[in-house]
Amino acid sequence: MDFQHSPRVIKLQAELTTFMQEHVYPNEALFKEQVSAKRWISPPILETLKAKAKAQGLWNLFMPGLDHGGIGLSNVEYAPLAEIMGRVFWGADVFNCSAPDTGNMEVFVRYATKAQRDKWLPQLLDGKIRSAYLMTEPGVGSSDATNVELSIQSEGDEYVINGRKWFATGAMNEACKIFIVMGKTDPDNASRHLQQSQVLVERDTPGMTIVRPLSTFGYWEEPAGHAEITFDNVRVPKANILLGEGRGFEIAQGRLGPGRIHHCMRVIGAAQRALEFACKRVETRTVFGKKLSEQGSVRESIAVMASKVEMCRLLTLRAADKMDRVGNKEAADAIAMAKIMVPQLGSEVLDMAIQMHGAGGLTEDYFMAEAFNYARWCRLADGPDQVHMMALGKQVIRELSAT
Amino acid sequence: MDFQHSPRVIKLQAELTTFMQEHVYPNEALFKEQVSAKRWISPPILETLKAKAKAQGLWNLFMPGLDHGGIGLSNVEYAPLAEIMGRVFWGADVFNCSAPDTGNMEVFVRYATKAQRDKWLPQLLDGKIRSAYLMTEPGVGSSDATNVELSIQSEGDEYVINGRKWFATGAMNEACKIFIVMGKTDPDNASRHLQQSQVLVERDTPGMTIVRPLSTFGYWEEPAGHAEITFDNVRVPKANILLGEGRGFEIAQGRLGPGRIHHCMRVIGAAQRALEFACKRVETRTVFGKKLSEQGSVRESIAVMASKVEMCRLLTLRAADKMDRVGNKEAADAIAMAKIMVPQLGSEVLDMAIQMHGAGGLTEDYFMAEAFNYARWCRLADGPDQVHMMALGKQVIRELSAT
Amino acid sequence: MDFQHSPRVIKLQAELTTFMQEHVYPNEALFKEQVSAKRWISPPILETLKAKAKAQGLWNLFMPGLDHGGIGLSNVEYAPLAEIMGRVFWGADVFNCSAPDTGNMEVFVRYATKAQRDKWLPQLLDGKIRSAYLMTEPGVGSSDATNVELSIQSEGDEYVINGRKWFATGAMNEACKIFIVMGKTDPDNASRHLQQSQVLVERDTPGMTIVRPLSTFGYWEEPAGHAEITFDNVRVPKANILLGEGRGFEIAQGRLGPGRIHHCMRVIGAAQRALEFACKRVETRTVFGKKLSEQGSVRESIAVMASKVEMCRLLTLRAADKMDRVGNKEAADAIAMAKIMVPQLGSEVLDMAIQMHGAGGLTEDYFMAEAFNYARWCRLADGPDQVHMMALGKQVIRELSAT
Amino acid sequence: MDFQHSPRVIKLQAELTTFMQEHVYPNEALFKEQVSAKRWISPPILETLKAKAKAQGLWNLFMPGLDHGGIGLSNVEYAPLAEIMGRVFWGADVFNCSAPDTGNMEVFVRYATKAQRDKWLPQLLDGKIRSAYLMTEPGVGSSDATNVELSIQSEGDEYVINGRKWFATGAMNEACKIFIVMGKTDPDNASRHLQQSQVLVERDTPGMTIVRPLSTFGYWEEPAGHAEITFDNVRVPKANILLGEGRGFEIAQGRLGPGRIHHCMRVIGAAQRALEFACKRVETRTVFGKKLSEQGSVRESIAVMASKVEMCRLLTLRAADKMDRVGNKEAADAIAMAKIMVPQLGSEVLDMAIQMHGAGGLTEDYFMAEAFNYARWCRLADGPDQVHMMALGKQVIRELSAT
Repeated sequence: MDFQHSPRVIKLQAELTTFMQEHVYPNEALFKEQVSAKRWISPPILETLKAKAKAQGLWNLFMPGLDHGGIGLSNVEYAPLAEIMGRVFWGADVFNCSAPDTGNMEVFVRYATKAQRDKWLPQLLDGKIRSAYLMTEPGVGSSDATNVELSIQSEGDEYVINGRKWFATGAMNEACKIFIVMGKTDPDNASRHLQQSQVLVERDTPGMTIVRPLSTFGYWEEPAGHAEITFDNVRVPKANILLGEGRGFEIAQGRLGPGRIHHCMRVIGAAQRALEFACKRVETRTVFGKKLSEQGSVRESIAVMASKVEMCRLLTLRAADKMDRVGNKEAADAIAMAKIMVPQLGSEVLDMAIQMHGAGGLTEDYFMAEAFNYARWCRLADGPDQVHMMALGKQVIRELSAT
Repeated sequence: MDFQHSPRVIKLQAELTTFMQEHVYPNEALFKEQVSAKRWISPPILETLKAKAKAQGLWNLFMPGLDHGGIGLSNVEYAPLAEIMGRVFWGADVFNCSAPDTGNMEVFVRYATKAQRDKWLPQLLDGKIRSAYLMTEPGVGSSDATNVELSIQSEGDEYVINGRKWFATGAMNEACKIFIVMGKTDPDNASRHLQQSQVLVERDTPGMTIVRPLSTFGYWEEPAGHAEITFDNVRVPKANILLGEGRGFEIAQGRLGPGRIHHCMRVIGAAQRALEFACKRVETRTVFGKKLSEQGSVRESIAVMASKVEMCRLLTLRAADKMDRVGNKEAADAIAMAKIMVPQLGSEVLDMAIQMHGAGGLTEDYFMAEAFNYARWCRLADGPDQVHMMALGKQVIRELSAT
Repeated sequence: MDFQHSPRVIKLQAELTTFMQEHVYPNEALFKEQVSAKRWISPPILETLKAKAKAQGLWNLFMPGLDHGGIGLSNVEYAPLAEIMGRVFWGADVFNCSAPDTGNMEVFVRYATKAQRDKWLPQLLDGKIRSAYLMTEPGVGSSDATNVELSIQSEGDEYVINGRKWFATGAMNEACKIFIVMGKTDPDNASRHLQQSQVLVERDTPGMTIVRPLSTFGYWEEPAGHAEITFDNVRVPKANILLGEGRGFEIAQGRLGPGRIHHCMRVIGAAQRALEFACKRVETRTVFGKKLSEQGSVRESIAVMASKVEMCRLLTLRAADKMDRVGNKEAADAIAMAKIMVPQLGSEVLDMAIQMHGAGGLTEDYFMAEAFNYARWCRLADGPDQVHMMALGKQVIRELSAT
Repeated sequence: MDFQHSPRVIKLQAELTTFMQEHVYPNEALFKEQVSAKRWISPPILETLKAKAKAQGLWNLFMPGLDHGGIGLSNVEYAPLAEIMGRVFWGADVFNCSAPDTGNMEVFVRYATKAQRDKWLPQLLDGKIRSAYLMTEPGVGSSDATNVELSIQSEGDEYVINGRKWFATGAMNEACKIFIVMGKTDPDNASRHLQQSQVLVERDTPGMTIVRPLSTFGYWEEPAGHAEITFDNVRVPKANILLGEGRGFEIAQGRLGPGRIHHCMRVIGAAQRALEFACKRVETRTVFGKKLSEQGSVRESIAVMASKVEMCRLLTLRAADKMDRVGNKEAADAIAMAKIMVPQLGSEVLDMAIQMHGAGGLTEDYFMAEAFNYARWCRLADGPDQVHMMALGKQVIRELSAT
């Protein structure tokens, strides 16, 4: 039992913190300005920062192992670094560690053919292109993957794709060149988990239309965006299938562990920063003759916020550690705990920090409202809280009722 | 003790409900489209609907008494009507019942000279122009009105105004022609509540600059908006003062009761509508082989949502009733209870309805996310929750510790 | 819409308040002393107070109509009176308005034969004897009445009863002379709601054993108690059946509405008193150089407590009003809202008041800990919260999804 | 970063678990029976179990270092063992690890003279006698130690003690032979933290009267109890002072860290056991045609309970680890987080487990209600939550506002 990070991690934390202070925070306003001017392309300042980060070796830190751009960090080593990146909504992009690309790169590593991997992975690892992962559909409860309706029909040496997806995060960005699409190749298979397949679709494939971006709480999250996309007789070669027909569900299962933890760590970073903002704020505001920081109710709130951030951090680190030790599947319970608790508690901390900033806390003058939006949609990303609670509850009952 | 509305109110509820169904809900998308195209002017559809509403007599219902455009409704009679309007974020505008104009019109009725009233009130009652109320400042904790820093200096027969305001709701709208501005005419007065005055400033007065709109949670709330406004040696005639020098605090106190209750009722309307949306949603979605509406946890959530909406409604109606019986000042405790509880519980109901809609619940395809934004900023409008809790707590302790 | 009580109710409130101040509060310690000395009989002080209350006409106020001891109060008139009684845990006993006797007396009025009624009702109305209602069984989830396992077999002109009941509130009291027992006369009936019957069993009937009292949170609630009772071939004449064979479920349904609301009102009384105690306490305690009442966090807490009490009160009054207007069955949704919310929020208020009293708040030096116990078990009495939430949610979905 | 316990700890966990299963759980009813028969002496079964535990070396595990009965466990090593003991309310007594004795033994180790230590420590380490720590007073807010009013006056070679204490945990037990008493030797000292001293008072010293036991939520916690004690000219030799006059506050500060963490771990043990009971319960109960464990809302609740237990555990382990690394004083923030969160969240878990057991969950047939009482009073022991939140908030603001 040891709650200290390794020297290597401590060094990386320091480097990232310095990088954020010197390069990222000072450019938050500029980033916003540039994406406002041109919504769906990566803003120049982001590309500049990516180059700097890559030059310093702060690049692809998320990637497990050493073979594919990573520096060999475990999940528990990466977690505190993702936290730092998460202090700015687009922070992870700077270090080529953003969702859904990290998960997609892992898919290429684990499930792609050599040809598929050779074609796409180097560009992704290099930060030249972005990718999307198309799971959710507007018409069905997609947290139950067996509900997916998009059709992938075999015709000769091609697949013909028809259907509609939405919440394809990142897909609005023009740099997003490759789409991993989940659909049904065998909708009548008696096994509901063998009906699905995942295929690769390149941007600009005829018949695929990016219909519109979707806002969440008024945010459009440029330049990534969440896209709604239709498929109208879209044809791709059979070589574009991942792993094989009927194995889409299997890929979906395998993909999700680390991504969830990364989301958690970034939310924690945002919550930690909000706590810091709140502390500075209450130290400098005076109401009814007394500094806010001297008011008991403010101190109580800060204490609760700090405790919640710490609980989130520990829960997430423990999940990361368990993934490292016993694998993502065996760590499903620990991952679920973090997935359930962190976005919820993180939202609460952000909400309290907003409140302490008065009406200004709701505006884009501060990062908190946008971060709240992020924490809030994390409660729906990769399935709503309720689905994870059901699964975790079922597992816990099974295990503990047998003791 | 009687929980039934009067026949007159029931008739008005029915008329408003029909109006909303026939004219407002079908035009929600069009409204959004029009304000997207031209942000800071009242969209044509809104003007069309205002004319219809006025023609039907569904106009200025908020106004107490019969002398100034009202039809003589009490607060407790108006409350359930404001609830119906609140089901659409811009619903109250249709019926000339929107904030901050309702409060401002009351200011003209109660505190203005005849000349001031004759100049502005008819246009406001007619829905031809809009108005703003400038209280909050970015640099100080403005819930403590004695912190206000904007300077109103007497020079000959003019006042010279210098300072900065923000969260001037409605001020972005080009139709907003008159600004009620709170500042200090006598900052050195030994009585901290006699330092303030309120003056009228017309749009386009030299030196007054509308700097920018402010977003809340990514929403800009076109065409009303929340404006940041600077005053740089703005000169207005002395005749523009309301009530007299040193009486700004008094006006601020007198203005606030009904406005808070109106906000509460509109939030309740939004929460009620969210509950209805949630019920329809869960009845039509199937996950893991069962309709959501058949899942126990969903039913429990709906029960809690319905109970919260009802508690909010009752708390607000009781406050309205108390205002009618004993006046706004004596009803301060009941108003505070509603002010504290309704935006909080309303936010929770909206949040739960969003969750039941999946990721789509966060988008502009539904009204809930924007309504959440409204409920959330109500927790800061007219002072943050904490200020009202402190005041209410102080009063309750004083009264009950003496029993 | 009118939130004022009628003059008659206001007068009764004043009388009850005076009675409590003069006779009940001063005897709380004596009551405890007497029941400690002799646990399962009504303590002399209680009998003295009952005589006083009866003499003043503060007696059987709960009873609807004028025919059976009541004074013709409606539910909404009785509610604020039950609140006052609820300020002391055994307060309702003083006025012959305690559970489960009130519900049982209603059963005699509505479902008993004349012979049954003549035998038992006068004594109950007179406060001479007490009664019990035996529904819950330890072995099955009894909130689902179809689970009930106690067997009532027809043999000649007798019923033979076998089984086990618990949480027979009031049954420990030696004055409890008559037991209404729910069981199955026809366990194989295809209709699960026609299997049950209710029969009357007198105390000391051979084969019926009061096994033990049950504590809740360490409280034994003398002299009433919650009893566990076994039935071993207990024989009663067929004339003891209520309403008829197979109609037990019907009686159970009809009995519950008012009882739930009475519990709610008493919990509100306890919460209101706790709020008053808290206000007095914080006004007289000084910590870290400042009165507790001057600390912001304390004021915030008091504000929240007062708001919660008021929400509970309004929710309950509205349910009572709806019962009066449309009947218990039609008012099921309003009753459920109160049943779900009041014990929960009441517990929270009591818990906060305890906390403000420091460790002493947990002891019997104050009434709050015992009142917390009452509010807490109300979350299980007449079915756990979850059952009511499920039912309410189902109804709300059905109604609102159809709009 | 490593979330695994050392092999030594894992071995001790297994031994303790086995001991609990073989010797403690099977005797819970017997313990209750014996203390009911004779309230304020250690029941024979407890003494039997203590002998067994001592024989197995499961004894004084809490004690730091090796010099005084300990086996050299760090806080982070002891924490998971205290958790196991906490699964039964009197579990820690079996292993001579109960409060307040552990803290008192540390006082003897760290602050006593050799003569004081030699006289009392061996008996305490041996489990022969018990001890009490008298800090709280009924008349003042004792979480502010400067409020303490008990007087310790110097007279010749004696101290004369006058005053009143309460919540002297353990003092009802006749085996409690030594009382550490906090009072004021120098109430006029300009420094409010140099007014206090702590002296040793033996049981049966003339003038010291154990007035009565105090219940919490109806529990008397025999045989330890919480006592109210008066001092009427109690005389003790000057040699009985600890550390020296004016150093009472210093001792109070130094004593508290580990004790708070021990309470947290025991609460976690109770919450974990409650979770296990809940899992077994829902797996075996059927309501409305379905096992509780198959109902979505039950699964969601279990998931939340499991997550809360884990968050509590991690927060506490981290605090223990920080204490081990940087000392109790430097770890004050981490200790405060655990102190604030664990009893609160632990109470919630216990409450949910109670609810899942129906009315039976409130009785002494299960351990949960009594454990809830323990978790609840922990929110007041060693100062109410609010005091710790204030202190933690102040520290966090100071640190983070300076970043």
